[in-house]
Amino acid sequence: MGNADYASPSKENMDCAHRVAVPPPQSFFKSLKYNLKETLFPDDPLKQFKHQPASKKLILGLQYFFPIFEWAPRYSFQFLKADLIAGITIASLAIPQGISYAKLANLPPILGLYSSFVPPLIYAMMGSSRDLAVGTVAVASLLIASMLGNEVNANENPKLYLHLAFTATFFAGVFQVSLGLLRLGFIVDFLSHAAIVGFMGGAATVVCLQQLKGILGLDHFTHSTDIVSVMRSVFTQTHQWRWESGVLGCCFLFFLLITKYFSKKKPKFFWISAMAPLTSVVLGSLLVYLTHAERHGVQVIGQLKKGLNPPSVTDLVFVSPYLTTAIKTGIITGVIAMAEGIAVGRSFALFKNYHIDGNKEMIAFGMMNIVGSCTSCYLTTGPFSRSAVNFNAGCKTAMSNIVMSIAVMITLLFLTPLFHYTPLVVLSAIIMAAMLGLIDYDAAIHLFKVDKFDFIVCMGAYVGVVFGNIEIGLLIAMSISILRVLLFVARPRTVVLGNIPNSKIYRNVDQYPHANNVPGILILEIDAPIYFANASYLRERIGRWVDDEEDRLKSSGESSLQYVILEMSAVGNIDTSGISMLEEVKKILDRRALKLVLANPGAEVMKKLDKAKFIENIGQEWIYLTVGEAVEACNFMLHTCKPNAEKEKSEAWNNV
Amino acid sequence: MGNADYASPSKENMDCAHRVAVPPPQSFFKSLKYNLKETLFPDDPLKQFKHQPASKKLILGLQYFFPIFEWAPRYSFQFLKADLIAGITIASLAIPQGISYAKLANLPPILGLYSSFVPPLIYAMMGSSRDLAVGTVAVASLLIASMLGNEVNANENPKLYLHLAFTATFFAGVFQVSLGLLRLGFIVDFLSHAAIVGFMGGAATVVCLQQLKGILGLDHFTHSTDIVSVMRSVFTQTHQWRWESGVLGCCFLFFLLITKYFSKKKPKFFWISAMAPLTSVVLGSLLVYLTHAERHGVQVIGQLKKGLNPPSVTDLVFVSPYLTTAIKTGIITGVIAMAEGIAVGRSFALFKNYHIDGNKEMIAFGMMNIVGSCTSCYLTTGPFSRSAVNFNAGCKTAMSNIVMSIAVMITLLFLTPLFHYTPLVVLSAIIMAAMLGLIDYDAAIHLFKVDKFDFIVCMGAYVGVVFGNIEIGLLIAMSISILRVLLFVARPRTVVLGNIPNSKIYRNVDQYPHANNVPGILILEIDAPIYFANASYLRERIGRWVDDEEDRLKSSGESSLQYVILEMSAVGNIDTSGISMLEEVKKILDRRALKLVLANPGAEVMKKLDKAKFIENIGQEWIYLTVGEAVEACNFMLHTCKPNAEKEKSEAWNNV
Repeated sequence: MGNADYASPSKENMDCAHRVAVPPPQSFFKSLKYNLKETLFPDDPLKQFKHQPASKKLILGLQYFFPIFEWAPRYSFQFLKADLIAGITIASLAIPQGISYAKLANLPPILGLYSSFVPPLIYAMMGSSRDLAVGTVAVASLLIASMLGNEVNANENPKLYLHLAFTATFFAGVFQVSLGLLRLGFIVDFLSHAAIVGFMGGAATVVCLQQLKGILGLDHFTHSTDIVSVMRSVFTQTHQWRWESGVLGCCFLFFLLITKYFSKKKPKFFWISAMAPLTSVVLGSLLVYLTHAERHGVQVIGQLKKGLNPPSVTDLVFVSPYLTTAIKTGIITGVIAMAEGIAVGRSFALFKNYHIDGNKEMIAFGMMNIVGSCTSCYLTTGPFSRSAVNFNAGCKTAMSNIVMSIAVMITLLFLTPLFHYTPLVVLSAIIMAAMLGLIDYDAAIHLFKVDKFDFIVCMGAYVGVVFGNIEIGLLIAMSISILRVLLFVARPRTVVLGNIPNSKIYRNVDQYPHANNVPGILILEIDAPIYFANASYLRERIGRWVDDEEDRLKSSGESSLQYVILEMSAVGNIDTSGISMLEEVKKILDRRALKLVLANPGAEVMKKLDKAKFIENIGQEWIYLTVGEAVEACNFMLHTCKPNAEKEKSEAWNNV
Repeated sequence: MGNADYASPSKENMDCAHRVAVPPPQSFFKSLKYNLKETLFPDDPLKQFKHQPASKKLILGLQYFFPIFEWAPRYSFQFLKADLIAGITIASLAIPQGISYAKLANLPPILGLYSSFVPPLIYAMMGSSRDLAVGTVAVASLLIASMLGNEVNANENPKLYLHLAFTATFFAGVFQVSLGLLRLGFIVDFLSHAAIVGFMGGAATVVCLQQLKGILGLDHFTHSTDIVSVMRSVFTQTHQWRWESGVLGCCFLFFLLITKYFSKKKPKFFWISAMAPLTSVVLGSLLVYLTHAERHGVQVIGQLKKGLNPPSVTDLVFVSPYLTTAIKTGIITGVIAMAEGIAVGRSFALFKNYHIDGNKEMIAFGMMNIVGSCTSCYLTTGPFSRSAVNFNAGCKTAMSNIVMSIAVMITLLFLTPLFHYTPLVVLSAIIMAAMLGLIDYDAAIHLFKVDKFDFIVCMGAYVGVVFGNIEIGLLIAMSISILRVLLFVARPRTVVLGNIPNSKIYRNVDQYPHANNVPGILILEIDAPIYFANASYLRERIGRWVDDEEDRLKSSGESSLQYVILEMSAVGNIDTSGISMLEEVKKILDRRALKLVLANPGAEVMKKLDKAKFIENIGQEWIYLTVGEAVEACNFMLHTCKPNAEKEKSEAWNNV
């Protein structure tokens, strides 16, 4: 600043402009602590523990991990009445759905009932959602069938298959608990909404296609899940189709869809669609019992063992050639199930205006699956359909899960023989009716309208699942999503700013066509943090902007370029590669006798530029708080100082 | 706007503020084309072809792919003199280095000479750098040895090993050409500078450690490259150490380092260090020849076949159980070698002020390796050490590569017998001296000072290479780098803005401590694009800011919060998950009787908000061009309208 030469902003001129501050130095550990906290504890769960006596802290801690201690003391009779109705309603849905999904996973049907007994009890104690109804889900069931089925045939070796399913559930639980305890819940965020829409739609399509086996009463069916194999399997054995089964299936499907449609139109009658599956089961069973249709090709569930969940701790296999398969299945199904459960919990929480901590939910889901795997249950989570019914039925707390659990317990103890004659085709119809609701056309159309790239992600996941398999679809969806993030970082937008007439505001000339260029000055805005991944792109791009501007000025005969202002407001951060890039840009501009000026670098950027001595290099007087002030200073110099004597036409970028 | 209620900005007030424009709708294909162009052609290589006649286009095209057609016509005698000196200098370095690195790759030493004959000729025609000297590199050589060595033992099955090395080189070339043609060169950008510093340092350390075998004259040596195995191998056979070899090695190493140090101090005498390796070879060979040291435990190169490169097309193995190994080795070494070559070319181009197109360079490197793999060469690129010597020797064009190639050709034809007595220990000393220069302490210290995270990436890569192996180091470096990008996207910074006194400027209150809060208004800046990966974090974080602000206001007894302004300048883009997030935030704020106001959303963001009907939802009158105008409008309403009658204390986030 002291002996400013004639091309530098004079002291008087500087005084009226604001200075860009270098934030006070912060110790490495302090900033590390801050960053770790923001990364792992963005919701600040420890806030409530501050300034509390130890005993209170203990109670708060207990309430934190077991929300039941929080709501149980203020539980009222009013609540109980509501939860009782909701609990019985979801039980009537849970029983047929549980049996259906267990069949889908190639597991004994009774497991579906077991899984609706123990896990809801655990969730009622540990979960923080008031609306979630716990149970098994179709997509995870199918995933288990396809992933474990690749290694072990469920029909040839049912015992090993069952044990692997328990083991996979155990690992899913362990994985969920670990993610929750390590507060890595944000991993779930990397599954974008678009990917989930596509994936769920695809999985629903695949599950529906699988039901053709039940509805057509086929004995042999492909083990693949892709549409080509399934269609080939269906149409190569048209002579095996059983019309009795087909007619029954279509009737029940029609009945279920009609009730669903009706309940959707009149939400007050939600219970009609909620009760429909149980009604179908009762009607179907009666029909079979009375007509002895089981002897005419209509397959039935058969014997279901009476009694509560047997323990299955000893069935967990940790030493087995299939251990890696079990772990892989557990992790993948665990993530998928958890993602659905958390999303469902969050939506209803938003509706009822309370808060859900994703990491805490993961711990609850995980504990539910660990305990479940030891009590003959397979993977459970909070499925959307059941939770929606729970919500519509007016549930108040997680008590509705306890009610459902008790209802299932009574069924297990006394009512299982009633399901002997339940035809499989009814279960297929129930699954199909539930799945058709998961194919979300409207969301896909919305994606297409708003964001084409999201639509591509969605369709990629859908096509991957339907034509490949579930894992491929998931992989496609995740890769495209992450690729998108990386591409965004690798190719940030740079825009030219112009002056909005009669103001000191400078904005994108594409967005504001009436914004004017400033003669002799090129103003560029960089719209992303500068990182190794985009540093060389930005160097090239800035060069190209300068070239284009010089060409334009030359062809229009305007005064030549003197200053390049980089608007840095949107540059949230910079790394060492980014700083090298700026140094190179400065060097190249210097050679072309252009001056580099920075406007509004943020705190983090200033700190790093300072440490790397780039501020000394460019000169503190060339960094301004706003573009307006930078332009003013440049204009001042353009008009008071004579233009740079001999502009070297070195043309740094073009010279080959 | 028509029937604005009392809480909306009045028409008069709106008129003085600027409107945020929704950019004109653009067809999907137009914006796709723009995005593809920015992604794949950021340097606009087709620009020069515009508005040119067809014949000129042909010539330009030829010159584009074969830059020799561009510089050859204006080649002068002055240039030739300079290139002759440079070429001979690099040849004197290339011969001993080539032999050494071939030994490092467990390949016959003569391959090092072959690889300095054909590839430089190809590069001279196709490469666009004027300073790059082509040759083999230590790190890639070691990688070949370790990756292929895992599958095939070079001593037991030398022929298969040799053929796999050619095949790997071929695939490296194919991969490089494909990347270049598909213009995917930016993949290299995902190797950050920090990762490369750590990786190179680690690889250099590993290569140095491997040289202990040669210097101590050991016969048996571990095949692992990690420091623990190497040290164990060295110190378990102390009785096998040969002092003759050790003394010779240390002397030559000392000599090489001294000359290097001297040349670094006085750049005029660059040729002293450039000639030192050849001098060492000559001296070492003479010494062995005269003292018959080869009979006293000093290992020598032995017979080298006279004659030029034999063809090796038929040696490429495409049907082999080791094909995948060859492809994997080719791709990994190809990427590493290419990254080094392009970085070196760019640095010198920046120095001499000309431009290098990374994608074009990849094609040149790739062609060089494809042709090389058919003429008994293994992987080549533009190594830093040799190119630096070339540059210092005053090369003018790629002609220096042709001169080097001719010098190597003469060596191959007539001088190979002279290398019979060259002791291996001299080669080890040459490699060690070259490698010590690659361990870049200064860069690591710089990283530590400027950016701790970059330092962690660097040390991760270093430790991974030294204690694990080269692939592990590379994997660690890449994963940490990408994790960093993802973490940044997942956890963007949000900052509170305050008013800089006596201005309409609003800036980060942490960076500008004298900036003042505005009563009743919370101004938040989001510093990154809003994506699925950060949407739920941002929702939580905004909620926490609002909570904190309300707590602060309550405890200090100030007037309560009425408006939340989101400054969106830095939000370069938004996806559908991001829009849902904004909708949820608006819903939550509405419930707390707070008004959401947006300031300066960019073109892309406005377009998507408009399509998703969020602008209708929030009301166009609540979107301002600057924070200043938004604050003005809010203040106007705060003071003219009575505050919202009964503020619901619903406390959306806290209510559990």
